[in-house]
Amino acid sequence: MPKAPAAVTPRPDRALTSDNISPVSAPIMAALIAANHSAAASYGADDHSDKLNRRAQDIFECDLTMVPLSTGTAANALALSTLVEPFECIVTQQSAHIVTDECGAIGFYSAGAPFMLLNGQAGKLYPAEIKQAVQQARSLGVHHTNPRVLSLSQVTEWGLVYSLDELRALCDCAHELGLWVHMDGARFANALVSLNVSPAEMSVKAGVDILSLGATKNGAMAAEAVIAFDPSLQQKLHYRRKRAGHLLSKMRYLAVQWLAYWQDDHWLHNARAANALAQQLAEAIAPRTDMHCLYPCAANELFVEYSPALAQHLRQHGFDFYDWPHPTDPTRALWRWVTRFDLPASIVTDLLECLNQYHA
Amino acid sequence: MPKAPAAVTPRPDRALTSDNISPVSAPIMAALIAANHSAAASYGADDHSDKLNRRAQDIFECDLTMVPLSTGTAANALALSTLVEPFECIVTQQSAHIVTDECGAIGFYSAGAPFMLLNGQAGKLYPAEIKQAVQQARSLGVHHTNPRVLSLSQVTEWGLVYSLDELRALCDCAHELGLWVHMDGARFANALVSLNVSPAEMSVKAGVDILSLGATKNGAMAAEAVIAFDPSLQQKLHYRRKRAGHLLSKMRYLAVQWLAYWQDDHWLHNARAANALAQQLAEAIAPRTDMHCLYPCAANELFVEYSPALAQHLRQHGFDFYDWPHPTDPTRALWRWVTRFDLPASIVTDLLECLNQYHA
Amino acid sequence: MPKAPAAVTPRPDRALTSDNISPVSAPIMAALIAANHSAAASYGADDHSDKLNRRAQDIFECDLTMVPLSTGTAANALALSTLVEPFECIVTQQSAHIVTDECGAIGFYSAGAPFMLLNGQAGKLYPAEIKQAVQQARSLGVHHTNPRVLSLSQVTEWGLVYSLDELRALCDCAHELGLWVHMDGARFANALVSLNVSPAEMSVKAGVDILSLGATKNGAMAAEAVIAFDPSLQQKLHYRRKRAGHLLSKMRYLAVQWLAYWQDDHWLHNARAANALAQQLAEAIAPRTDMHCLYPCAANELFVEYSPALAQHLRQHGFDFYDWPHPTDPTRALWRWVTRFDLPASIVTDLLECLNQYHA
Amino acid sequence: MPKAPAAVTPRPDRALTSDNISPVSAPIMAALIAANHSAAASYGADDHSDKLNRRAQDIFECDLTMVPLSTGTAANALALSTLVEPFECIVTQQSAHIVTDECGAIGFYSAGAPFMLLNGQAGKLYPAEIKQAVQQARSLGVHHTNPRVLSLSQVTEWGLVYSLDELRALCDCAHELGLWVHMDGARFANALVSLNVSPAEMSVKAGVDILSLGATKNGAMAAEAVIAFDPSLQQKLHYRRKRAGHLLSKMRYLAVQWLAYWQDDHWLHNARAANALAQQLAEAIAPRTDMHCLYPCAANELFVEYSPALAQHLRQHGFDFYDWPHPTDPTRALWRWVTRFDLPASIVTDLLECLNQYHA
Repeated sequence: MPKAPAAVTPRPDRALTSDNISPVSAPIMAALIAANHSAAASYGADDHSDKLNRRAQDIFECDLTMVPLSTGTAANALALSTLVEPFECIVTQQSAHIVTDECGAIGFYSAGAPFMLLNGQAGKLYPAEIKQAVQQARSLGVHHTNPRVLSLSQVTEWGLVYSLDELRALCDCAHELGLWVHMDGARFANALVSLNVSPAEMSVKAGVDILSLGATKNGAMAAEAVIAFDPSLQQKLHYRRKRAGHLLSKMRYLAVQWLAYWQDDHWLHNARAANALAQQLAEAIAPRTDMHCLYPCAANELFVEYSPALAQHLRQHGFDFYDWPHPTDPTRALWRWVTRFDLPASIVTDLLECLNQYHA
Repeated sequence: MPKAPAAVTPRPDRALTSDNISPVSAPIMAALIAANHSAAASYGADDHSDKLNRRAQDIFECDLTMVPLSTGTAANALALSTLVEPFECIVTQQSAHIVTDECGAIGFYSAGAPFMLLNGQAGKLYPAEIKQAVQQARSLGVHHTNPRVLSLSQVTEWGLVYSLDELRALCDCAHELGLWVHMDGARFANALVSLNVSPAEMSVKAGVDILSLGATKNGAMAAEAVIAFDPSLQQKLHYRRKRAGHLLSKMRYLAVQWLAYWQDDHWLHNARAANALAQQLAEAIAPRTDMHCLYPCAANELFVEYSPALAQHLRQHGFDFYDWPHPTDPTRALWRWVTRFDLPASIVTDLLECLNQYHA
Repeated sequence: MPKAPAAVTPRPDRALTSDNISPVSAPIMAALIAANHSAAASYGADDHSDKLNRRAQDIFECDLTMVPLSTGTAANALALSTLVEPFECIVTQQSAHIVTDECGAIGFYSAGAPFMLLNGQAGKLYPAEIKQAVQQARSLGVHHTNPRVLSLSQVTEWGLVYSLDELRALCDCAHELGLWVHMDGARFANALVSLNVSPAEMSVKAGVDILSLGATKNGAMAAEAVIAFDPSLQQKLHYRRKRAGHLLSKMRYLAVQWLAYWQDDHWLHNARAANALAQQLAEAIAPRTDMHCLYPCAANELFVEYSPALAQHLRQHGFDFYDWPHPTDPTRALWRWVTRFDLPASIVTDLLECLNQYHA
Repeated sequence: MPKAPAAVTPRPDRALTSDNISPVSAPIMAALIAANHSAAASYGADDHSDKLNRRAQDIFECDLTMVPLSTGTAANALALSTLVEPFECIVTQQSAHIVTDECGAIGFYSAGAPFMLLNGQAGKLYPAEIKQAVQQARSLGVHHTNPRVLSLSQVTEWGLVYSLDELRALCDCAHELGLWVHMDGARFANALVSLNVSPAEMSVKAGVDILSLGATKNGAMAAEAVIAFDPSLQQKLHYRRKRAGHLLSKMRYLAVQWLAYWQDDHWLHNARAANALAQQLAEAIAPRTDMHCLYPCAANELFVEYSPALAQHLRQHGFDFYDWPHPTDPTRALWRWVTRFDLPASIVTDLLECLNQYHA
């Protein structure tokens, strides 16, 4: 998460920095208020937490263990630490959030299990490269950590979305190599509405073993979770969550965020709103010669190349976005735009107007 | 936290199991609602978080680093991990919460720094025993971990409160031995109103170097914090918090809980209510021959000895409390009673009535 | 290992400080010299290492994994780290070497798994106390680390030796509770000749799952090992050894120490010599009123109580021994005497003469 | 260290697999024998260990802390773990031994500090790339681990040797960025004789802060060391060595290997012999069209490209070498040849003869 040079006069309705700047959505805040009466058993023994487990099983159409948490970093680190011994390694794409933006959390939780970084293409992983790297590592015996889990991000770090076919091929490849499959689903809902498939299809049915699922970027106050589809992981997850200081005493307030998030397709509704705005922005700038998107728009993120002078112009008019390292050429300027459920549709016309002023 | 055999018909207004079963207090919930509009910078760069740092400095009358968190286990583990190398050890009382109830979180965060457990007396630590144990350990050179921090709990694990003189003596002893002083202040407010002193007097002015400060048991939704009085700890705290997955993206919702907690002496008001009820319960049962408190009532916890038959009778009438291991004789039954800000005053007369029925 | 105030004129033939001050025994040094020719495959792929695995299976009469190492601390830490998750704990006696003398190595290797310390009696563990403590811990659920392994020392830290019946009772108790059994056998040979039983009887047949076996104190240069009787531990041991930097490249020189140690009952011969001297020393001082042994002599260690003035007298005549903390009263002086295979028999008469001079 | 498909009839005088297959050199074995008499204080309090510290200061012409160890993995992991907090990272070349061949030891010892991998060129690091990567990481604040140490290998992983000018430029760059400099000197002596400079010039005077120094590949039985030039690291090194199980009880046998290694330029003599043979092999094959070296010969390693059929021919005649991953093209076959002090000069003519037979 690169530091954003602040917009001169930052305006919330023009901020494209991140989807985690949004407030709590109305239905989720209402659920928090509704839950706030009387005493309730602590540490997840309350009625809301109990109900949540069953609700998750409905959503994913199978038996599972859901472990609610308050951050995505905790979700990724907790999930991965239940899958690897410290002398095993995690195969992933070199731009993965777990590699670049979580301050070594995975190494902390796993007691030092390292990453095996693959290049992939445009932020995606490919079976052939995975297979080659895993076999090379294993040929070294105890001198190299043993690959044990494949971690992929859906939405990817470059805003792309794996198709179900791509997901299945990756999971099959991983399982053949004896690897678990972890999915970082910080923007799972955005991918879901992009593919228009079911939660189960995009996870357990495709072969995902454990999922980091995020709600915070899409409307919650602080609600993330690990969803494990393998029952052998349950005890580890519960002990490790407590030991990491992530078992809240007043767990009901975490549970009701999830229940409201999944109520009446609220999560899908929010994700559709965010994705639609990104699509509109992409279409709006497509004809322009002074800016272009590095990748097609698949969810709610755009990586847009334009001149620093134009960036300055936009910021002077209250727009904001993060500087982003260019994937292939460190000398080229790049910016990330992220849309979110609460961003007003006016941003599209505002942006076009501002761009036109620049050329005027 | 021993598992409570559920009361037959549990009643929130008769539950003495823990102060973490309480809901969010009205002023704190109001603050959460008030903060819920518009976009705000993430990861603590928002205005509320900025204001909180200054507010904490007012409360503790000095420069400091405040790191808000969502659990007390995280606060204790984060605080202690910034004070020790993995080859150093933490001197504490054998019944300390960090030893018995946090699933090894301290060892996790500190990469294996162990405890040096002292007996103390009635849950309190004493300078002479500390000194003897530290010197014995150091005589072993590299063969024993080097004592580096003293961790004490205020309120103690047995519901007692260190006087300012006791605190100062412990801090002086620790500093002479080259130890940092950590205070587990999960019930700091309860101790504060018990001693009727200022936050600064009971911490930094007494010699405490770093404080785990809790608000959750006393009215917040999930608001704990590390308060470090030594500026050299700031960077470590911020990096280690992120790495542990405890840096919330929507940090404003954590900041406003603290701001409301400290507004208009709300924290002291809540703590006084809880302490007063514990005092009334202690006085109510004092004349009885069928139950007695192991220790004088100093805050909001009582450790009460009575027969399992009487316990069953109380539970049949909706009262609830945790079984607790007796400090000296594992064969004797003991129960912990905890009062809280939202517990109705009716519990005192309800309890006496129920007890009288038992004897009738 | 308490620091020894140096004897005024230390004499090797009067030093009782430790059995690790001895040189390498003649047969083991001869084996090192004999192996020193030509190139040999590294990292344990050499012929000597291959032969050693088969030899260990002969000695312990079963299939096993033997992992040679150069220190006892590494052996204990490696063994225990393969048995516990970081959220599990190790049940042991509070005076255990792994607790007091290994600088937190177990916590390091296990990523923070703590000890659950039992009092035992005279340095021994007892099933009833184990059972009570394990059940109490488990009643706390995720709030307490889950007991997972019992670690006992044979010879114990106070020089006593568990009988086969005692060992079997401990192992049965542990297994019933779902605990692995680890034996710290730094002085395994001394216990073996004391009980006059076979290596298998005192380990795998009694129920021990994994053994730290030492040769260094009894004649080797630097030869310790983990012997695992459960085949599921093999891969973990090999990866964890490498990762800890304990896989020697020229492994043949470690293998031949073990082969020579086990050749022609060399290990038993050395241990008998050490034990016999300890027995003679114990008998020599038994009649005296100015010194007495705290415990009966069972192997090669005595814990002897006498006045600091007498200690000074002995040190002035070249005797040496470590100060040792008294097990029940920190104000009383105590010294540890350790005999070893290379200690000349003259020490017994020398000591008596020196003691008599003191009284003269 | 890739697994070597065994030569059909492996001959020690034709093995080029590694320098760690060599036996102990005669002077070092003689020193071990000479030290083997009488009792000696344990854990490094013996006379030989005492002498070694002073000897190291002579060799490196400055005050320092020398910590003898038995493996190079331990030396690298111990050295680096004293320089980083777990939330800091280690900047190094992607082919570094610490990255690819030590099974995550660095992550283990440092409690999870990750690597920041640079491409470099031909296995060397360059200041410009270091500076760019460090600044990019730091722009992310707490979201990315903070670069804290630069680790370089002399001899590099591709058999090259940094010149003094290159070393000084790297150290200056690192220090300007606030990074410590660690040198992996597993083949330090080979680089020393290659550059024909003094030990101090190639380490402390060039700006190296801490050195992993190896003797095992060049004649010792198991003798490696950490040499720290900054006095603030001493205590950490000693405690961390003990905690890792690397403090040998009979330390004298490690000390005398080092003393003999440095006696009468024995280390330089051995390294010159190895380097000379590598040079002769390189010259012998230079005219050939069926094999060529990827890099110029600078020390005792060659990376030679030739057909698998030729490799098979050589192995059928008793030659042996490791398969090695090609640095730029995974489809091309590559082999590593390593010479050593005890390799007979006959290998050069033997090899040429065998090669000529292949063409015949």
